[in-house]
Amino acid sequence: MTRHSAVPPPVTAVLDASSRWLPARLGEVEERLRQALAGHGEPLAEDAAATLAAGGKRLRPMLVLLCAGEAGGEAAVRAATAIELVHMATLVHDDVLDEAPLRRGQPTVAATSGRDRAVATGDLLFSRAFGLLSAAGDGRSVQLLAEASVALARGELAQRHDAFDLGVSEQRYLARCRLKTATLFECACLLGRDDEHLRRFGAEVGLAFQLLDDVLDVTGPPERTGKARGTDLLDGTVTLPLIEAAAADPGLREADLRQLDEASAEALCERIAASGALERVRARALEMVAEGKRELERTGFEPEQRQLLGLVADGVVQRYS
Amino acid sequence: MTRHSAVPPPVTAVLDASSRWLPARLGEVEERLRQALAGHGEPLAEDAAATLAAGGKRLRPMLVLLCAGEAGGEAAVRAATAIELVHMATLVHDDVLDEAPLRRGQPTVAATSGRDRAVATGDLLFSRAFGLLSAAGDGRSVQLLAEASVALARGELAQRHDAFDLGVSEQRYLARCRLKTATLFECACLLGRDDEHLRRFGAEVGLAFQLLDDVLDVTGPPERTGKARGTDLLDGTVTLPLIEAAAADPGLREADLRQLDEASAEALCERIAASGALERVRARALEMVAEGKRELERTGFEPEQRQLLGLVADGVVQRYS
Repeated sequence: MTRHSAVPPPVTAVLDASSRWLPARLGEVEERLRQALAGHGEPLAEDAAATLAAGGKRLRPMLVLLCAGEAGGEAAVRAATAIELVHMATLVHDDVLDEAPLRRGQPTVAATSGRDRAVATGDLLFSRAFGLLSAAGDGRSVQLLAEASVALARGELAQRHDAFDLGVSEQRYLARCRLKTATLFECACLLGRDDEHLRRFGAEVGLAFQLLDDVLDVTGPPERTGKARGTDLLDGTVTLPLIEAAAADPGLREADLRQLDEASAEALCERIAASGALERVRARALEMVAEGKRELERTGFEPEQRQLLGLVADGVVQRYS
Repeated sequence: MTRHSAVPPPVTAVLDASSRWLPARLGEVEERLRQALAGHGEPLAEDAAATLAAGGKRLRPMLVLLCAGEAGGEAAVRAATAIELVHMATLVHDDVLDEAPLRRGQPTVAATSGRDRAVATGDLLFSRAFGLLSAAGDGRSVQLLAEASVALARGELAQRHDAFDLGVSEQRYLARCRLKTATLFECACLLGRDDEHLRRFGAEVGLAFQLLDDVLDVTGPPERTGKARGTDLLDGTVTLPLIEAAAADPGLREADLRQLDEASAEALCERIAASGALERVRARALEMVAEGKRELERTGFEPEQRQLLGLVADGVVQRYS
């Protein structure tokens, strides 16, 4: 089974364990996403439909819905849709930057339609997200999403700034992951419910997600991750697996990422794997997920709600296994 | 005198004619813009500072402030800042698309820092705009700005879709200009005050602005417009001057825009000018401005407020003369 089927395994686990309200709400989110992307003329409809069809795990919408609980109703559905639109916007824009040919195993908007349309498509998804949230007069949610979007852009800028720099510290890497990934997971939880423990849960799970994503880039294979192995390295993005590997195998610091081609990137992936770095990074990610779950215990949520959120956190780990 | 001095002539005319509150408010907007762009780390600060330093006429903030009137206070300053941030975001993103080397006579973010940073910088400016508006819990304003941002992105997509197509009709050109330019002028007026006549005033002035901008692209010279002559043609953007010229000189329809270089683009500009199209487009823009001013008469505004808004409309025309 590929990770790209309509309902990926982690989602299935949550849906199986949940009351009927969650699948219904997720269905509403899909419908809202479809509506938000429709009616902008032919070319966008195609681009957006491709992005939508590529699916994704809808982890962020699930976090919104689960943190809000059954009582979250319409406001939670709207917030869940908006955060996924922002996530989709950043994917489309990242593809412009990376000139990535594949995303989730599908050709990217940038690759199929040119960079120009990808920039505008991303802008449109962003604008739609804010329009959707503000239509209901929910100022706090708009504020949360705007702050998270600022963080995303800052994370992207930090990543570009540090590109090809093998001297990037673990601390700097983690700060960038917080901006680039963890903040949107945090935001998803806070959109559901304003609770410091939920915020920390989201932050830990989001950070774990990024660490495991960076491990996946090294392990491949492409038919599972939807992109070629070593793509980050070819982009000059120095991630924790490489930082950890270089600590054990200092010769790695001499690598010149600018000189990499697909074959040498593959070889570098092998060398990172041989250093044992992947197991160490994975262990750290698992510890983050465990810490996130401990935060859940402090929320005062009912056992079922905690269990469902725990399953989402497990889903982040399972995508790796 | 260049158009790029800190306070361009149209602005000076409005400031001279206005009571003391307008210059003070515009100064606050500049300060807010500075704040909104600060504190995102070194690379962004540089990019953003360059975009900010390049200035611009601040026409949209002025429209917000003038439509809101003296009583608009803090809310108007915030909205004026937010709309200029969105405008700056689209400029930065347009530069990615066009790979324009100059904007307002200054090197663009895309040219100096790479496309990657420009996309993220634009995203950050967008996010900041929505964050700023929502911080004050002003849902209607967020909604207006989000709708205008959707229109901007749709206009950009339409422009890309129609690129290099000499069969583009006047109607389609005008529809694109409404999305790409006029909607943000409309939005500026509505952010100041919810009034249908003001909306129409903004729409007419915005459309005139785009028509005259398209004339400027044909007339040059670059030291006045801040970009090379015929840039639109080289990008494949078919504008009203070319559509009008081809109506009078049908041989122009045989031109292959994809084959243009700087010299042949210059020659095409000469041929458009020789057809008399520029005078006709300019006359239409002037008629739009006049129609916009007639809408002002219907607002019930005091003469001074109408006069100041009229001066902004004149400023749009003056930038051409």
